[in-house]
Amino acid sequence: MGKVNIQRLATELNLSIATVSRALRHSHQIRPETREKVWELARKLNYQPNPFASGLRGQKSKHIAVVFPELANTFFSLAINGIEEIAREKNYHVLIYLTHESADSEKSFIDSLSNGRVDGLLISLSSQTTEFSHIDALRKKLPVILFDRVYPSEDILHVATDDYNSSFEAANHLLQQGCKKILYLQALRNLPAGKMRLEGFKDALIKAGIRPEEHMIIGCDGDEKATMACIQSALAGIQPDGVFSSIEKLGIYCYQAAAALRLRIPQDLKVVSFSNLDTAALLNPPMTTITQPAFEIGKEAAALLFQQLEKKKIGLHNKVIPSQLICRASTAAN
Amino acid sequence: MGKVNIQRLATELNLSIATVSRALRHSHQIRPETREKVWELARKLNYQPNPFASGLRGQKSKHIAVVFPELANTFFSLAINGIEEIAREKNYHVLIYLTHESADSEKSFIDSLSNGRVDGLLISLSSQTTEFSHIDALRKKLPVILFDRVYPSEDILHVATDDYNSSFEAANHLLQQGCKKILYLQALRNLPAGKMRLEGFKDALIKAGIRPEEHMIIGCDGDEKATMACIQSALAGIQPDGVFSSIEKLGIYCYQAAAALRLRIPQDLKVVSFSNLDTAALLNPPMTTITQPAFEIGKEAAALLFQQLEKKKIGLHNKVIPSQLICRASTAAN
Repeated sequence: MGKVNIQRLATELNLSIATVSRALRHSHQIRPETREKVWELARKLNYQPNPFASGLRGQKSKHIAVVFPELANTFFSLAINGIEEIAREKNYHVLIYLTHESADSEKSFIDSLSNGRVDGLLISLSSQTTEFSHIDALRKKLPVILFDRVYPSEDILHVATDDYNSSFEAANHLLQQGCKKILYLQALRNLPAGKMRLEGFKDALIKAGIRPEEHMIIGCDGDEKATMACIQSALAGIQPDGVFSSIEKLGIYCYQAAAALRLRIPQDLKVVSFSNLDTAALLNPPMTTITQPAFEIGKEAAALLFQQLEKKKIGLHNKVIPSQLICRASTAAN
Repeated sequence: MGKVNIQRLATELNLSIATVSRALRHSHQIRPETREKVWELARKLNYQPNPFASGLRGQKSKHIAVVFPELANTFFSLAINGIEEIAREKNYHVLIYLTHESADSEKSFIDSLSNGRVDGLLISLSSQTTEFSHIDALRKKLPVILFDRVYPSEDILHVATDDYNSSFEAANHLLQQGCKKILYLQALRNLPAGKMRLEGFKDALIKAGIRPEEHMIIGCDGDEKATMACIQSALAGIQPDGVFSSIEKLGIYCYQAAAALRLRIPQDLKVVSFSNLDTAALLNPPMTTITQPAFEIGKEAAALLFQQLEKKKIGLHNKVIPSQLICRASTAAN
């Protein structure tokens, strides 16, 4: 048996070398039946592509990477779906990498991308990321778009929501429903998103003539157990009549803590949370949420990335897509 | 300026070539400060590693891939956390790929792994996967472990839960709580997991002297809207007194459908669902779940993969980790 290379596959299948090559790269230009035929023979003959030849020729890998903090947050699973919708159209594979909120993991993985494994990157920063040299270094080699958790930069594009306005509106809603003593559950304090959410909250209070107090702002960065304990002790000690949760997870913890303390939502405590939870309306009681346009953010970010990959420079600018306050029973007036 | 290669980095930093090389590969054998120093200089000099040299020398990529169907299912986000716990210990990066239940996407991505991009694969099959040649082909090149959604094979290892027993126990629980007319929401019908869940359910009925009827088994494979409509019309038409949901998503839809039809859970309708939802206890009413050992399944599957990667062949065998029925108000007796 001679060497199994593309030439041989082409000869045996009576196809052109270009067709076989495209079929092996899963190109949509080739009919599915033909692709299948090529792959079937390739597998049968145990064809070993020269794994790096195409890379050395400077071809595209046809993969993009998406780096983001965690899976447990519904926002990210929806954003990924938006990203994949665009990538599928473009016939790209999407590789996902989770940082688990670790700046080290983020840095280490981003560095590993510099060898051409992927053609472009979409990233939502970890809550611990405070410097950005790893991203700036990668940007010299491939297109990078930030989404949701972004950092201010003049020359890197991002897609995000209007955190300040959303928070202002939600805090205002709590005030209108009768809250006078609102506890703020803080997260992402290193990131613009976290800072903007807190600013929006504070400004709504100030506008209503209430001075924001530091002891009403609870940082919740520990593990699950520590965070739960911290929220429970704040609810029991401070006895707020409202809670503003700046991320989804803390909203769920707040419900759990209220149940443990036998506090009734909304009678004793009104709760609003940033959240894309698909069970928000099924909770007891249904939870008022600031619902982010997660799918759309993913889609827009991916669209910008592909514009850069395809060297279309026209109309490239940052996008801000508004969030929506959805009022449910957890903030009903007494 | 001379060429920027590992030699030059080593000379400038007064380190050995081996140390620099390891640092560039993020090896845990190298102290973090040293790694940082190496990467700092590499970035400063815009060092371009020969992306494929290491691959051509047959070195490890230090990446594993995890392929699974969807993010929206809490099971998978927990399983990923288990996988990553092991991978972190081994200093490996984990690349995640979603098939969105498409056998084509699964096949196409698995084929793309044959070029040495990763060192090993963990996979949970798409619900549409009915033939496995793509997996068998990849297994000739690198270690592959199946988890949760597996297929029967004599020589491929898997980690899963005891779907038959879990279903039998949960169906039995519905019967004991007084249900006489139980609707089964079916999914994954191509896969052993789906078949075993249905078998366990049917056998519990038979043991109780009830003949399982085909019209009480509703297949739910359409999109969200079609599935909701199908569940609503089954609840309205058949008027069951119990629902057995074989996957998490259908359990949530069932709650939504019951709310739309103003059916009270558990008075009019008792509901049990396979689910790892972290809000199950916060729903109205709290939902009885068959909770799978998702984190442990991920951890065990990753441990098996690394045993294969490290050529430790001792003690390699399939693992079955039991699920747990957690009874809550959605199945309370009237």
